[in-house]
Amino acid sequence: MKRSIRIASMLQDLSGRPSVLFKLQDFCDKYAISKATASEDVSFAAQALSESNQGEIITITGPSGGVKFVPTISPFEAEIIQKMFCERLNDPGRILGGGFLYTSDIMYDVAFVRDLARIFVTKFKDLESNYVVTVETKGIPLASMVAYMLNLPLVIIRREPKFSEGSTVSINYFSGPDQRVQKMSIAKRAVTYGTKAIVIDDFMRGGGSIKGIWEILEEFDIDAVATGLAIVSATPEMKKIDSYMHLVTLNDVNDNSKSIDILPNVNIF
Amino acid sequence: MKRSIRIASMLQDLSGRPSVLFKLQDFCDKYAISKATASEDVSFAAQALSESNQGEIITITGPSGGVKFVPTISPFEAEIIQKMFCERLNDPGRILGGGFLYTSDIMYDVAFVRDLARIFVTKFKDLESNYVVTVETKGIPLASMVAYMLNLPLVIIRREPKFSEGSTVSINYFSGPDQRVQKMSIAKRAVTYGTKAIVIDDFMRGGGSIKGIWEILEEFDIDAVATGLAIVSATPEMKKIDSYMHLVTLNDVNDNSKSIDILPNVNIF
Repeated sequence: MKRSIRIASMLQDLSGRPSVLFKLQDFCDKYAISKATASEDVSFAAQALSESNQGEIITITGPSGGVKFVPTISPFEAEIIQKMFCERLNDPGRILGGGFLYTSDIMYDVAFVRDLARIFVTKFKDLESNYVVTVETKGIPLASMVAYMLNLPLVIIRREPKFSEGSTVSINYFSGPDQRVQKMSIAKRAVTYGTKAIVIDDFMRGGGSIKGIWEILEEFDIDAVATGLAIVSATPEMKKIDSYMHLVTLNDVNDNSKSIDILPNVNIF
Repeated sequence: MKRSIRIASMLQDLSGRPSVLFKLQDFCDKYAISKATASEDVSFAAQALSESNQGEIITITGPSGGVKFVPTISPFEAEIIQKMFCERLNDPGRILGGGFLYTSDIMYDVAFVRDLARIFVTKFKDLESNYVVTVETKGIPLASMVAYMLNLPLVIIRREPKFSEGSTVSINYFSGPDQRVQKMSIAKRAVTYGTKAIVIDDFMRGGGSIKGIWEILEEFDIDAVATGLAIVSATPEMKKIDSYMHLVTLNDVNDNSKSIDILPNVNIF
């Protein structure tokens, strides 16, 4: 097989399974090549990847080592994506009243969401986590992409316990401007005691929902090692949680003047 | 730049944006190469892709033509995935009673769901559709992957109208073994009158929910051009909808003997 075809093929093998560790021996067997050739091919693949700005190849040394593709993004490109996100959000047609914006079309534009996910992946890739957790519904495509890219199972917390979830653990928590009591429910089969989770959601205002997620995870002694949010409202200034990473800050939505003030979070990297 | 690096990089450009049409001129500009070279490079990229079994490059001729990556799957590989799906489902520990199985861990294993999605993509890629539509919650990662791969917006139908969805259209429909009245709600901003949709969901028993989706789409004069389901229950034999494509058939779940009878649908291709 022509070498250039083999290199491109190897890169596809890797990029089709983000964060999955491939042993060099796998490539030796598949393509009938020596370890030295496989290693050289991987370094060409890594160069091609950086040329295409689609991520990086990470080498793990040692007997249990290998190579894996991680779809990281450069700070420069992340800033472009964050600005694009702000531009799309900054449209008076989105204003719903009460300081809310219609964002579903963006949060369900999966190709775009994939780029948002890459920012979280870049930031969270070295955390030892067992799951990516979200609460239904609007953050699911984003959390789903992050889970895929980190090669972690996705856990979706439901608002109501469902029969199809088997036995569940539920909590009540306070959320929203009016501090309503809300419910969250997690399938017992979905998680293991004493593990770690990355929490992803599309939007945070006061932090009640995220605090709810942290609390329901605590019921299983699961540590929320990181929390990533697409949009965070600047108000209220005091959040119910103290540690999170977000892409853009919604400073103000003015229902009367039909203006939106939204800015990228420049302190990510 | 070394040619093998360029070919692998071009393939990454394409595979990072499934179903997006790239003009050859884009590659000529990016890599400073002639059209003849770009065209030859694309054909090498196509060979590499088929070597890696990750999909195909489709060429569209004519002045508005170009090339695009579509993550199709071969019938042979699809069968392997369908069998794997059956094996994972065929675990007595999943039996919840009432003929229900716990499936969330599989439907939220996004790397696996991506392979399921490729089967739908292979089948639906030539349909002229405007959206991929699902109803919350369990089918969202699957629908999300199909939408990404077909480069279509995802539309998520909610069970209850939410403030953040803006103005909505709701319907009542009958679903489940007890024919309960249920509700579905779709954001008016999410869709355009007179368009087409591909419907994706994780599970169908009698077809009430899918019929509900078809009906709510009809409110907008949207034609459901295809319906793809991961699992379909063999009973009841009479479904409320007549046209759908599914991956595996759940013939029986026996609560007493703790046995599951589930088989791949061999009539997909």
